[in-house]
Amino acid sequence: MKASQFFISTLKEAPADAEVVSHQLMTRAGMIKKLGAGIYSYMPLGLRVVRKIEAIVREEMNRAGAVELLMPVVQPAEFWQETGRWEAMGPELMRVKDRHDRDFIIQPTSEEVVTDIARQELRSYKQLPKNFYHIQTKFRDERRPRFGVMRSREFIMKDAYSFDRDMAAAKASYQVMAQAYRAIFDRFGLRYRAVAADSGAIGGDLSEEFQVIAATGEDAIVYSPDGDYAANMEKAEALAPAAPRKPASAPMTKTPTPGKATCAEVAELLQVPLNTTVKSLVLATDQVNERGEVVKSQVWLLLLRGDHDMNEIKVGKVPGLDAGFRFATVAEIVDHFGTKPGYLGPIGLKKPVKIVADREVAVMSDWVCGANEEDFHITGVNWGRDLPEADAVADLRNVVEGDLSPDGKGALAIERGIEVGHVFYLGTKYSKPMNATFLDETGKPQPMEMGCYGIGITRLPAAAIEQNHDERGIIWPDAIAPFTVVICPIGMDRSAEVKAAAEKLHDELLGAGVDVLLDDRGERPGAMFADWELIGVPHRVVISDRGLKEGQLEYQHRRDSAATKVPAAGVFEFIQGRLAP
Amino acid sequence: MKASQFFISTLKEAPADAEVVSHQLMTRAGMIKKLGAGIYSYMPLGLRVVRKIEAIVREEMNRAGAVELLMPVVQPAEFWQETGRWEAMGPELMRVKDRHDRDFIIQPTSEEVVTDIARQELRSYKQLPKNFYHIQTKFRDERRPRFGVMRSREFIMKDAYSFDRDMAAAKASYQVMAQAYRAIFDRFGLRYRAVAADSGAIGGDLSEEFQVIAATGEDAIVYSPDGDYAANMEKAEALAPAAPRKPASAPMTKTPTPGKATCAEVAELLQVPLNTTVKSLVLATDQVNERGEVVKSQVWLLLLRGDHDMNEIKVGKVPGLDAGFRFATVAEIVDHFGTKPGYLGPIGLKKPVKIVADREVAVMSDWVCGANEEDFHITGVNWGRDLPEADAVADLRNVVEGDLSPDGKGALAIERGIEVGHVFYLGTKYSKPMNATFLDETGKPQPMEMGCYGIGITRLPAAAIEQNHDERGIIWPDAIAPFTVVICPIGMDRSAEVKAAAEKLHDELLGAGVDVLLDDRGERPGAMFADWELIGVPHRVVISDRGLKEGQLEYQHRRDSAATKVPAAGVFEFIQGRLAP
Repeated sequence: MKASQFFISTLKEAPADAEVVSHQLMTRAGMIKKLGAGIYSYMPLGLRVVRKIEAIVREEMNRAGAVELLMPVVQPAEFWQETGRWEAMGPELMRVKDRHDRDFIIQPTSEEVVTDIARQELRSYKQLPKNFYHIQTKFRDERRPRFGVMRSREFIMKDAYSFDRDMAAAKASYQVMAQAYRAIFDRFGLRYRAVAADSGAIGGDLSEEFQVIAATGEDAIVYSPDGDYAANMEKAEALAPAAPRKPASAPMTKTPTPGKATCAEVAELLQVPLNTTVKSLVLATDQVNERGEVVKSQVWLLLLRGDHDMNEIKVGKVPGLDAGFRFATVAEIVDHFGTKPGYLGPIGLKKPVKIVADREVAVMSDWVCGANEEDFHITGVNWGRDLPEADAVADLRNVVEGDLSPDGKGALAIERGIEVGHVFYLGTKYSKPMNATFLDETGKPQPMEMGCYGIGITRLPAAAIEQNHDERGIIWPDAIAPFTVVICPIGMDRSAEVKAAAEKLHDELLGAGVDVLLDDRGERPGAMFADWELIGVPHRVVISDRGLKEGQLEYQHRRDSAATKVPAAGVFEFIQGRLAP
Repeated sequence: MKASQFFISTLKEAPADAEVVSHQLMTRAGMIKKLGAGIYSYMPLGLRVVRKIEAIVREEMNRAGAVELLMPVVQPAEFWQETGRWEAMGPELMRVKDRHDRDFIIQPTSEEVVTDIARQELRSYKQLPKNFYHIQTKFRDERRPRFGVMRSREFIMKDAYSFDRDMAAAKASYQVMAQAYRAIFDRFGLRYRAVAADSGAIGGDLSEEFQVIAATGEDAIVYSPDGDYAANMEKAEALAPAAPRKPASAPMTKTPTPGKATCAEVAELLQVPLNTTVKSLVLATDQVNERGEVVKSQVWLLLLRGDHDMNEIKVGKVPGLDAGFRFATVAEIVDHFGTKPGYLGPIGLKKPVKIVADREVAVMSDWVCGANEEDFHITGVNWGRDLPEADAVADLRNVVEGDLSPDGKGALAIERGIEVGHVFYLGTKYSKPMNATFLDETGKPQPMEMGCYGIGITRLPAAAIEQNHDERGIIWPDAIAPFTVVICPIGMDRSAEVKAAAEKLHDELLGAGVDVLLDDRGERPGAMFADWELIGVPHRVVISDRGLKEGQLEYQHRRDSAATKVPAAGVFEFIQGRLAP
């Protein structure tokens, strides 16, 4: 490809609304162009990256036995009504009416449609397992679209759906996909982790996220540097401390803490470590009658160490809280604790509440908590002596760096990631309400067991850039670079030798299947180099008259700090040696 | 590819709503699946055809210097408001509101968005010409979607847009595209015609449709078998008759024609040829004041031969009618003619009307028309003698088979076609309202001259089938067949020789880049052959134990009436010899 037959348009400045580096660089490099909030055109350079990602995904999906089809963007509401998602999904589901006033949606995902296909097409156990996928435009009407194509409203996703005869077969299909995803992400050439994720009520452990590692990532990834353990923050387990509770050593003392309503403020005032304080979180659960009216409410007190954060997913698994909970109202809190939030604690309650202690809090002694009286806390609190043991002890918190790894191999580390893929066992969540059954060997209809497997095709370029960039611009891995090699001839219009050498190398590389661009725009060297460093093509060859006189070209990888002189005669082989295998 | 790793699902019966053969066969062959009115999923076989079509289009567009990008499906209304199409387009424009109650559309085409990109990106004459295209999902909320993917609501289209500095350059860009389209349609392997089409007010002759020839096509294509002339019915010119008007030979006579309100009925009653009758069509034009109120109306009488049909496009070009016209109301007709429609004519008017005669009518003598009196017609009518010459003579009608070709080469023939492509010169229709200008050599802003070029990607498979099918099913041209070759082994599960021969041939063809499918489903021969004849794979090889014992395989092209025995040793070369080049 020659630049004159392509379209390159770089910008010195990033747009004002570009908060993250990938959005800034994609815009500046001319890869995307904003059309509206969360809606982007993929300009020619950006589309090349998208297509390379699609091609890798397609190859590996096909290799794993999945079959490609294409389901529509606009889908009738009736399918979404069958599964209840028409009502359950909020305004992020883009609803639209046609000229006959019938309801449709612009698809954010295709579980309903693929299940409708399966219930028509897959009638016998002999047709299972089957995995259908498509690569299609989707729309999610995000409340606050931002970060360019990282969190856009319109995006392209690969979504695959497996259909199996039973859970064991579904687990096998899940594992095939989990392996295919590793092959896909390996080929992208990005640093990533497959991390265990919460799978909600169904599926046990069959949920993994594929996270591209990046300091700017929105998700916290927990892993064991000494082992294989990796999970997202929602899922990662905080083990119970190995050491038993120490005996009480301090008397329980009520202490004035005027205006100090947080653990951090209290610890600072009292000059004690934050990890000796305990924070009180008050939740409530409601009992509802058949008319949907609340007939009885239960107030819960959750106790976490002052330096720890509550993990809502884990709290939602505590027996009694697992059918849904809410934060208590101020009226409920005053009614049970006799005071407003900020000075709450488990001692001196007005009415009984259920107390759940985090595993860490359950082994603390001599701790600090609110006195259930405004402007007062209590120090030297001890389980058993000052209050009964908690009603329940559970893992309620997010892990922190240094916690023991659940696999017993050293301490946990935390890094940031960007979720770009997800494999998930669905069970019969969609097949049951949509009556997607097959006939088993005995001729009996059985609901199909499903799994779903997504990759955010248009989010990947942004994630790749968040991971791979420097102050000059993007640094693409070979596999998904818009071009693998760029040839920069200097003075091509003045020198027939430069022109001939550039075109010869271009043709040789192209003939060898290398995705090469010859920059024949006639830009000055400084502007030309700056463009390609911004765009991030990994391999650059500079051809100049002076170099040719010495029989040499200059090669520089985008990560190299300086160029390497290469004999002109051997440059083709040299470049081939530098390309990713 | 092996069938067991793919998805094949054929049906004996077509769905009740499948009116045309392509819809019937695509559904029966398992290529598409209806999700809602005018909304289809492309099943794996159908998607393969779509992807092959896309690949050919993409290659030829790139070869012609166009640059691919990807514009969004969901587009903010503001761009459509800039050009006035937000108001001008009817309910076929699918409108949607987001969570913030802002207006969007699901794109039916992308002139607005590409012009917005051009006005930002193309600032200098040095950047022109430029041609951007994308292959994207579109939506048109048809009042009556039907014929499967031939007239669906959601569809995939390739649309390209050229930007040029002036009309001469725009015409050159148009010609490049017109040539690229010929290359594309040649490669599809379909019989097609590029026909001149009406270009509205702008562009002169720079509008061509690419029509796939099919007896079931909705469009009439007019062409000269002896020359190069080809146009669609809207555009095809009916020349003035070469022979002059004959002198009057009959007296003008009022004749009772009770209840005979059409030319055909009158001709039958009077026992005269239909082509001696003249039909009266009454139109009106309105003069409007600055407040949009009609201040004055003019009634027009158009005279066409009884066996001819009015051509609205041509009528809209008659001076005086070219700013818009409507059919006259019954009140206007009664007011001017003294009677209701059915017995109208140019003689004995109550009030003056403008009379426009079709070229053919202008040279008629001794003709029949209504008497402007219920249940009466007049025979023996002659221009000059019985009424003054018409105010204007013009080409008002559709051509008919046998009319003289406008290129002077013989008589016109008519065949049916399906429009699958259109190249069109736009001028400044979009660039002017959207202020898409570039700076010329003198630094002066000039509006860009545009062209647009569409191909109905998902309509093409249907058009191909309308042209190429028989009573057993589809007959694909090699270039866009879902698979080029199918290998049908008989008794593969029982015979190791059959299995080995089938797999060897499969691997050889695959290795040579041939798109081959090995049917390893274990179907019985009859069902297997019926499936592949329905699906329409052009080349079939049958491998059987009996044949192998004789050292032979059987080859049959989908158009062959019988199989050919081929020595097993030379089958690979034999098949290669039969593939389209």
